[in-house]
Amino acid sequence: MKNKNKNKILSDIYKDISLTKEEFNFVVTKFEQITLNKGETLFREGDIVYYQYYVYDGCLRSYLIDNFGKEHTLQFAVKDWWISDYTAFFSTTKAIMSIECIQKSTVLKVSRKSMEQLYKEVPTIATFNRIKLEKAYANLQKRVLKNLSQTAKDRYISFIKTYPNIEQIVKNYHIASYLGIATESLSRIRKELTQ
Amino acid sequence: MKNKNKNKILSDIYKDISLTKEEFNFVVTKFEQITLNKGETLFREGDIVYYQYYVYDGCLRSYLIDNFGKEHTLQFAVKDWWISDYTAFFSTTKAIMSIECIQKSTVLKVSRKSMEQLYKEVPTIATFNRIKLEKAYANLQKRVLKNLSQTAKDRYISFIKTYPNIEQIVKNYHIASYLGIATESLSRIRKELTQ
Repeated sequence: MKNKNKNKILSDIYKDISLTKEEFNFVVTKFEQITLNKGETLFREGDIVYYQYYVYDGCLRSYLIDNFGKEHTLQFAVKDWWISDYTAFFSTTKAIMSIECIQKSTVLKVSRKSMEQLYKEVPTIATFNRIKLEKAYANLQKRVLKNLSQTAKDRYISFIKTYPNIEQIVKNYHIASYLGIATESLSRIRKELTQ
Repeated sequence: MKNKNKNKILSDIYKDISLTKEEFNFVVTKFEQITLNKGETLFREGDIVYYQYYVYDGCLRSYLIDNFGKEHTLQFAVKDWWISDYTAFFSTTKAIMSIECIQKSTVLKVSRKSMEQLYKEVPTIATFNRIKLEKAYANLQKRVLKNLSQTAKDRYISFIKTYPNIEQIVKNYHIASYLGIATESLSRIRKELTQ
């Protein structure tokens, strides 16, 4: 898995669209494959963000630390998820969050500039990514609504549906900080659900 | 304002991009102008969503009612905002929220199918909308993070920056239900800020 071929990963990412051989070869030149170890950081709050990241395997987490030193988790990215600080990435400005690796990961990275070139040269990818972004936007709307309207217990149930098996990888306080609850509340909810 | 010409509104929407006369005329055929009165509903939870809406003037609100009958506000849309239930709109499925008019509004509506035709025939609009969607996605990420990490007071301050002058139009419980707090907490915060 460690030396998984970049071409193979890109074939997986774009398996649902038809690319000519020439287009695919162009795509390959725009992505870089990296391996991250647990505890490594992609960028921290205040860094300029040049890349977005595709997780082939492993797990990344985006989070911010508030003025009281408390962590808040925005997103986990497991297999087939994209992650970045999108406010910073889309405008190449300073990150308002950090991204760390919480399980050894194989990741492809691509810069904003490369994405723009891809959209220009390979319109099929522009359409494919637009549809992915539409879905991501709709999912984020749902998350805002769930955070406003659901109990912590229902949010936890949604969370384990969205991220099956993630509980073996991430710490309890990561999950609690994603749900916006205390670690003790998470333990109580789990106990309730197993009863 | 009532009979504001649709062509003029569309020129405003797309003022930052160059369209040929032919392209612009094609765009015009895809949008329909409607006027909504206070209290009118665009769609309710459970309706199939065919359209997204551009607010030229006035104010719309998207919200859901939870199992306890409590309202939660996802978004207000004032001049130059787009609004829909995007989960439902992007896949032409049933709405999980409702949209109502809270101040007499001039609105353009466009169907999913028309948008797809526009993206195909007018690539400049595809790019323009992709960039708008990227910004909207980034803003929604920021909102999730703010909801997790900021105090109600700071969220209220962000809210009045995002929606200046909206407090004259919307009810207090709308704002409270957007911030995820009780109406009494909103009154307390306002009192604190004026002192």
